[in-house]
Amino acid sequence: MKTLRVNLPGREYDIKIEKGSLDQSGELIARIHEPCNIAIVTDSNVAPLYSNRLITSMKKYGFSPKLITIPAGEGSKSVNMLTSLYAQMLDMGLTRSDLIIALGGGVVGDLTGFCASTLLRGIPFVQIPTTLLSQVDSSVGGKVAVNLPQGKNLVGTFYQPKLVIIDPTCLETLSDRIFSDGMAEVIKYGVILDENLFNTLRTSPTRTKITEVIGDIIYRSCDLKRMVVEEDEHDTGGRMILNFGHTFGHAIEKKYNFTDYTHGEGVAAGMVMAAEYGEHSGISPHGTAQQIAEVVTAFGLPAKIDIDKTSLINAVKVDKKGEGNLVTLVLAQRIGKAILQKTKKDGIWIW
Amino acid sequence: MKTLRVNLPGREYDIKIEKGSLDQSGELIARIHEPCNIAIVTDSNVAPLYSNRLITSMKKYGFSPKLITIPAGEGSKSVNMLTSLYAQMLDMGLTRSDLIIALGGGVVGDLTGFCASTLLRGIPFVQIPTTLLSQVDSSVGGKVAVNLPQGKNLVGTFYQPKLVIIDPTCLETLSDRIFSDGMAEVIKYGVILDENLFNTLRTSPTRTKITEVIGDIIYRSCDLKRMVVEEDEHDTGGRMILNFGHTFGHAIEKKYNFTDYTHGEGVAAGMVMAAEYGEHSGISPHGTAQQIAEVVTAFGLPAKIDIDKTSLINAVKVDKKGEGNLVTLVLAQRIGKAILQKTKKDGIWIW
Repeated sequence: MKTLRVNLPGREYDIKIEKGSLDQSGELIARIHEPCNIAIVTDSNVAPLYSNRLITSMKKYGFSPKLITIPAGEGSKSVNMLTSLYAQMLDMGLTRSDLIIALGGGVVGDLTGFCASTLLRGIPFVQIPTTLLSQVDSSVGGKVAVNLPQGKNLVGTFYQPKLVIIDPTCLETLSDRIFSDGMAEVIKYGVILDENLFNTLRTSPTRTKITEVIGDIIYRSCDLKRMVVEEDEHDTGGRMILNFGHTFGHAIEKKYNFTDYTHGEGVAAGMVMAAEYGEHSGISPHGTAQQIAEVVTAFGLPAKIDIDKTSLINAVKVDKKGEGNLVTLVLAQRIGKAILQKTKKDGIWIW
Repeated sequence: MKTLRVNLPGREYDIKIEKGSLDQSGELIARIHEPCNIAIVTDSNVAPLYSNRLITSMKKYGFSPKLITIPAGEGSKSVNMLTSLYAQMLDMGLTRSDLIIALGGGVVGDLTGFCASTLLRGIPFVQIPTTLLSQVDSSVGGKVAVNLPQGKNLVGTFYQPKLVIIDPTCLETLSDRIFSDGMAEVIKYGVILDENLFNTLRTSPTRTKITEVIGDIIYRSCDLKRMVVEEDEHDTGGRMILNFGHTFGHAIEKKYNFTDYTHGEGVAAGMVMAAEYGEHSGISPHGTAQQIAEVVTAFGLPAKIDIDKTSLINAVKVDKKGEGNLVTLVLAQRIGKAILQKTKKDGIWIW
């Protein structure tokens, strides 16, 4: 079993990656926690696929799991669903020495993690991500949040899990579109940090081909994210490079009411736009946008999405990482290396 | 101006204590933060008394303050009020490089602090406590929370302020009952940590007399709390001694629907009960309960409140610091020294 150790002082944890590890959850968690009550949060898509295997494995090692199933979809990442989780967990008598498990994709992980970070001022939690997006990105690094009517992820904390269990075989049940959703973040890691990873994607440019090496791809993605998070857990500096393509991507998601495009689709087109911006600024070499567009397209993601300039500029201005009149742009110096550039909000231009 | 430095690695902050310091808020905050937008949260009791002085002082130093006034009372420490704060702060365009100030008592401080700890994953905040309870206890140590229908402070975080400004002249507008509410915590510090402080209370046993030395009393109380919090910020060990009298006190508050008795009144009677429990267990010397009862009574607090044993036992069992079948009792070994005793839930007895 591949193991990555995330070294954050006082909040160290392992990421375990192996096919079939879902069925070893009980054993893996028993190594870090006494038998206890466990609230497993999952969604209506994941519950019928994987919850019984998890429950069986947990019971085998003396844990007392209880399943909480929320409706699948971004709509569940709300304050209302959060208070419902609080109530259900208090009803089952959960204490600080018990455990919460998030079994599912990004919505389940973010919502459950925020719940765990705030209920009784913090209950230990374990992430078992089941989508590619959550396996390579959202389950690692401790960012948890819920949405507000005013925007996504506006309320949250930094709260590290005690363990992340990644079973790549869970990806087999994903539709092509949701698989691609996660590939956008893998492509991003290549662009901002790892030319070799990017080249691997270029030479295995289909779901079938990349699935042959998906364990390595997930491991490398998590390892890159680990390095960034260890340097800047609270996202005040270097971690912002993970935002490459995301500000424009969020603008696209918002413009289309978070329904027409997935997060990954927004990010894919956003990365191409960020590279175009970089080329016009003289930071990204000519052709960078084109290289990204080709890989993005190969994995079934859009290289271009129609959006008006006003929406783009507003998205940059309201980005929650802004400081007063300054925003930080993430630009690709070349494939494999991104840089941060602080810019005045009114200095943002659109080509 | 008296200054206490709270040394938590990466989260250091000062507690400033001086009569009239409310009017120096702008100058004090300007030393730790650039001019920025500021959301000042206060309540309907405090707003007419002190908000204009704070706003004037902040403007003088280049800050742009906006006042948010919530209804006074525990009812405001709710998830609903929290989401209302989120919305108002987002509407004013607050960013992570802006600032939130809590101006008021424990309800305002706890609610505002939790809001600050979660909005945009954390906005810096300053506590300006205006009640004795908040000046000697709730504004120091970083515990912030809101209530749920299921109980008080069930949702929260540990989030340290950037600065605490304590102006003892704000206490002049408190009713005797609310002044006494805070004295219960001062008495607690004496019992658990400082016999000299306890003796000072015995020899100045009226509001008038203690007010003559209130700056010293606040300083000493904050200093004692600082020491405890520095040892155990996240309340997993030594910090639990601050809970002396509180489990029984909470049972009293709950039994009387949080309306008939203040927090301090519950804690006062709870401390006497905890001392009686200690005496019967052979840990507290004979007469400890009587000594506490006398000081409590001198400051207008109840030494005894009727409550059935079942309510007491249930309160101990559902205490959120419980671990599985164990609870930690805080008992007085003598006046000035408390100890922690782990006990099985079913081993709790009532004399």
